[in-house]
Amino acid sequence: MQVGIIGLGKMGFNLALNLKRNHYQVVAQDVNTDFVSKIGQEGIETAYNVEELCQKLTGRRVIWLMVPAGEIVDAVIVSLLPYLSKSDIIIDGGNSNYNDSKRRYAQLKEHGIDFLDCGTSGGTSGALNGACTMIGGDADVFDYVAQVFKDISVENGFLYTGAAGSGHFTKMVHNGIEYGMMQSIAEGFEVFEHSEFDIDFQKTAKLFNHGSVVRSWLMELTENAFSKDARLDGIKGIMHSSGEGKWTLETALDLGVPTPVIALSIMMRYRSQMSDTFSGKVVAALRNEFGGHAVEKNE
Amino acid sequence: MQVGIIGLGKMGFNLALNLKRNHYQVVAQDVNTDFVSKIGQEGIETAYNVEELCQKLTGRRVIWLMVPAGEIVDAVIVSLLPYLSKSDIIIDGGNSNYNDSKRRYAQLKEHGIDFLDCGTSGGTSGALNGACTMIGGDADVFDYVAQVFKDISVENGFLYTGAAGSGHFTKMVHNGIEYGMMQSIAEGFEVFEHSEFDIDFQKTAKLFNHGSVVRSWLMELTENAFSKDARLDGIKGIMHSSGEGKWTLETALDLGVPTPVIALSIMMRYRSQMSDTFSGKVVAALRNEFGGHAVEKNE
Repeated sequence: MQVGIIGLGKMGFNLALNLKRNHYQVVAQDVNTDFVSKIGQEGIETAYNVEELCQKLTGRRVIWLMVPAGEIVDAVIVSLLPYLSKSDIIIDGGNSNYNDSKRRYAQLKEHGIDFLDCGTSGGTSGALNGACTMIGGDADVFDYVAQVFKDISVENGFLYTGAAGSGHFTKMVHNGIEYGMMQSIAEGFEVFEHSEFDIDFQKTAKLFNHGSVVRSWLMELTENAFSKDARLDGIKGIMHSSGEGKWTLETALDLGVPTPVIALSIMMRYRSQMSDTFSGKVVAALRNEFGGHAVEKNE
Repeated sequence: MQVGIIGLGKMGFNLALNLKRNHYQVVAQDVNTDFVSKIGQEGIETAYNVEELCQKLTGRRVIWLMVPAGEIVDAVIVSLLPYLSKSDIIIDGGNSNYNDSKRRYAQLKEHGIDFLDCGTSGGTSGALNGACTMIGGDADVFDYVAQVFKDISVENGFLYTGAAGSGHFTKMVHNGIEYGMMQSIAEGFEVFEHSEFDIDFQKTAKLFNHGSVVRSWLMELTENAFSKDARLDGIKGIMHSSGEGKWTLETALDLGVPTPVIALSIMMRYRSQMSDTFSGKVVAALRNEFGGHAVEKNE
């Protein structure tokens, strides 16, 4: 079976290698020609534009998009349309917002093109060695390419989640859970760091991965991080994010569902990106106003 | 080697069986004589009071307490003192507050008795088949009984954490992390439950355990729970707690360390135990006062 891949960043590149290892005939394309050359050296057939990609795919086309979420996905889809035939299948394997996926499904339906939204977890190593995939869209379209998801995922690591959008929705909530779990682990080690005891973080994380209730892949990554830098002295505690936690919170707000831990996880990320806060100035000023409490002045 | 066990509830009972399987000569005691008879039927030597227990242990005694945290631990220690000899070792394997453990270590030191505080994770199945143990106290005392901890724990599942109190401190923070992780998982499924999609919770939890970033023992337990009751219709969402999350938060407050996710996890447990809140009445009343917004009246 042939699979086209558009987008050869860390995830797409590794996914292409994963597919090749599973004996798929991959045709790979990216706007960055360096990436295209590089994957060509791995023995994978390449295309330098979407027209060439579509020409090299025969029969009912299966095209996997692994490009950054947002307008780029729409742009790639628009660029593909002139070269597609009815019933060709576009899979969006990126971190798209599920509302965008529902819209794209409907828009492509008007052109007779099938669309699957695929949430992909497991990081770059998962993309290479076995991912975790959650797929939304029409059941018969999923069935047509189910073997692809099965092959590129770890055992039991793929699931048809239902209607269009549900794959990216499931991945979004997964990431929301991930935010809260990460923040909780982090807060525990913050308490360790400030405690009266001389806690060995790496040994403690390792212990927690052997028989404790909190054993988890994230705790294994915590152990890895401390094994490289015992007190993380080499990095700043600035936490960026790429949107799915925020979308989970926005969805919870729209649904009227309380998710305080996920909400605070996101707020703590935003706080970490500020060296000072205006709210801090306001509270300090108010304490000074009503109680004469000292403020710390800017030089 | 002989090991005395005081406290034959779910944890102590299983620990006694674990020790016996590892060829220790166990002498087991509990104030509940039914528990004593029951463990006697497992071929374990029994004692019906602490005097008998101490008489049946020869040489440097090793006595493991697995009794409820709080005053009971102090009471058992006081009752033991007349029958102990210098350098005998008391291990508190329960969920004691680390400040209590520091105090007990110092008090027993005055009597020449050695004390180790052992945080024990992994639940009742861990106590039986292989626990995760974290041990504080004097290094030479730990060394004397290190093999016991090694034998009853899973591979790499025991750690000497340092000074007296550090074992229970480490376990306390472990439980704080556990609270946050559980709440985060729970919030994610709350979003699923209210969503527009027909998410299969058990299949989704199972998927998350195969290759995703949030794979964890807690997610495996989530999968188990949904496999027995697909939408948890059979239980109420009332979350009790046994103190260690609260202690983690109290410690964080004393240290001046922000732990919002752990804090909110605890608050959500308290909220779940209330069918209505007074704060809710206050806010509803205020909205009515300033804006004439309708309130929902008690019948």
